[in-house]
Amino acid sequence: MTDKFNPRAILDVLKRVLPDDGKTASLHEPCFTGNEWSYVKECLDTGWVSSAGKFVDRFERGIAEFTGVKYAIAVVNGTAALHVCLKLVGVNPGDEVLVPALTFVATANAVVYCGATPHFVDSELKTLGMDPAKLAAHLESIAEIREDGCYNKHTGRRIKAAIPMHAFGHPVDMDPLNSVCKRFKVEVIEDAAESLGSYYKGVHTGSHGKISALSFNGNKVITTGGGGAILTNDVDLGKLAKHITTTARLPHPWNLTHDMVGYNYRLPNINAALGCAQLECLEDFLAKKRALAKLYETSFAPVRGVVFFTEQKISKSNYWLNVLLIDEENADQRDDILKLLNENRIQSRPAWDLMHKLHMYSQCPRMDLSVAENISRRLINIPSSAFLMDNR
Amino acid sequence: MTDKFNPRAILDVLKRVLPDDGKTASLHEPCFTGNEWSYVKECLDTGWVSSAGKFVDRFERGIAEFTGVKYAIAVVNGTAALHVCLKLVGVNPGDEVLVPALTFVATANAVVYCGATPHFVDSELKTLGMDPAKLAAHLESIAEIREDGCYNKHTGRRIKAAIPMHAFGHPVDMDPLNSVCKRFKVEVIEDAAESLGSYYKGVHTGSHGKISALSFNGNKVITTGGGGAILTNDVDLGKLAKHITTTARLPHPWNLTHDMVGYNYRLPNINAALGCAQLECLEDFLAKKRALAKLYETSFAPVRGVVFFTEQKISKSNYWLNVLLIDEENADQRDDILKLLNENRIQSRPAWDLMHKLHMYSQCPRMDLSVAENISRRLINIPSSAFLMDNR
Repeated sequence: MTDKFNPRAILDVLKRVLPDDGKTASLHEPCFTGNEWSYVKECLDTGWVSSAGKFVDRFERGIAEFTGVKYAIAVVNGTAALHVCLKLVGVNPGDEVLVPALTFVATANAVVYCGATPHFVDSELKTLGMDPAKLAAHLESIAEIREDGCYNKHTGRRIKAAIPMHAFGHPVDMDPLNSVCKRFKVEVIEDAAESLGSYYKGVHTGSHGKISALSFNGNKVITTGGGGAILTNDVDLGKLAKHITTTARLPHPWNLTHDMVGYNYRLPNINAALGCAQLECLEDFLAKKRALAKLYETSFAPVRGVVFFTEQKISKSNYWLNVLLIDEENADQRDDILKLLNENRIQSRPAWDLMHKLHMYSQCPRMDLSVAENISRRLINIPSSAFLMDNR
Repeated sequence: MTDKFNPRAILDVLKRVLPDDGKTASLHEPCFTGNEWSYVKECLDTGWVSSAGKFVDRFERGIAEFTGVKYAIAVVNGTAALHVCLKLVGVNPGDEVLVPALTFVATANAVVYCGATPHFVDSELKTLGMDPAKLAAHLESIAEIREDGCYNKHTGRRIKAAIPMHAFGHPVDMDPLNSVCKRFKVEVIEDAAESLGSYYKGVHTGSHGKISALSFNGNKVITTGGGGAILTNDVDLGKLAKHITTTARLPHPWNLTHDMVGYNYRLPNINAALGCAQLECLEDFLAKKRALAKLYETSFAPVRGVVFFTEQKISKSNYWLNVLLIDEENADQRDDILKLLNENRIQSRPAWDLMHKLHMYSQCPRMDLSVAENISRRLINIPSSAFLMDNR
């Protein structure tokens, strides 16, 4: 190994770590080696595949138990969960919502679904997520606290909520973020779509704000095909979340009456059946993903020019998608690395295009985003499936 | 049998027609006796349960082929399909959309998701759906045609679209409705959620307007657990529908770039697998449902005070949910009938509460709704599952 940075050194490590089975190593693939088959069969045999059936209740109880949150409401996907979270904390048309620039597009889209405008926030390098100190300084400069909330002095719009997103499974520094948001009367919604199995100061992500969203998309730690959940410790919000995601129908033996504009966001029973089986394997998946991250950490340690991103001491990450950060001076080689790895059947990807770089969000309010831009230039996701640690 | 109307006469017919197996006869239950199991197993065995996998494409091709529509885009449910249809024909915040008063709440909710206001339209007794002549008279009285569309003179809002809904599978009289809408520059979106397998003048419902929505909820003719589809013959709309329902991501080997505010509405592959198997049985289901409707028709013919609702000569109904209409003078006994049937384990239900009677829609613009109100007082749905005709 020379002193100079060489993309091939990254390829070499990955080739050593990943199974040599001739297959493409995907970023994240699900694993169905538990009771998926028998639960799904039960759905088909009983005919209960849709909006009735016991697996939805069971899955919701299982998620609540695992995360330690009082109420879990299963929905069709993480985007739907976020949309409802925003509605439930009272985000209205014309409001602004603080959204990280470094996130999957759904975080910003859900804000638009409410007729509100995303306002982009920078990340801190140590968590990849929202920077509480930088946000505080920004709000001090642009915001005005009134009787009914926080207002953006420049746009005149109310800043109703913030959506910290635990990027790639790494928890945002929630305590200082909550302090800032409390001080500025901003509601906190956690986007925990990527962080099932991640903890901040010993408490599961998704229980540090007022309400939060999980995802069980096919690329997540566990999957229901497509699916998500709303988490909250607030009994009234939990009941309302269930009501509004199931068309807001009033209970009656036969009448079809609805008392508010609801959504058809309920997770079908067949998808929940898959989820119940996956939940039984979750601890095992997390342990394997943790072992893989550890192996990556050790294996990349001697490689110059690149750092394997690890969890903070106060946090425990699920290492959903493992992250490499290329040193600043080699960042211009990011696409060469991506090309080399993908050509060698090792799926790898840069971070999402930053939100303010997307055409439809380029005119939204934002703070200085230099850290998110720095991360975005340097980040690469590498294969992270739990089963990569099978038989080792 | 006396000359006087007697609710027991209805019960007696249903007891004769329905299987005497000691089970509750549901309104509509799915039937999984085809390849459901093997296709779903294929998903689990290959790990392709989510947003990748071949069953979504295959299901979309199958739906397009069956309905004779050029493009079918599979989505998470019928509500999502309607939402996207409204977006794609250009319904914007502040617009009005013509919606039948007699419909499932999703038709109106989807309008609200776009920031628009539903404007309720009456039904005609022969189809249960939108009354084209009455709508024409209403628009002549309240609307003004301007360069950029039709405007409601009373509210000042643009009336951008109409959503005829084929209630319980019975096709709306589409030709005169299309004429009225064309004359008033109103786009036509068909809500065909209930009418897969229903035809108007020999052409499948959902291909008479610009774009339309299907549903594969658990209570529909075929089911994907939860699911729906957008249908259109317009190549540009079809491509846009696919793009916008799949987060509007631009194709690239690794970059995650999105060029518009999209939705996470794609049907998971595991649900599409179920749909592929169900589609193979669709003709059989429709034949059985048709035979059941015929049996009901003959069996209810001698019963005084009630009429079994049948298709128009120019249409073919899928008889999704079979409809009884109680004579006007006995309408006050509707709830007694519902009670009697449900107590005897024969699930039956009135029509949906009319949209303008729901709290959240009580202030919306509307025309005279006397026919919808009349139908609503008199209508009862009775068990309609295809498998009720098994082994006969």
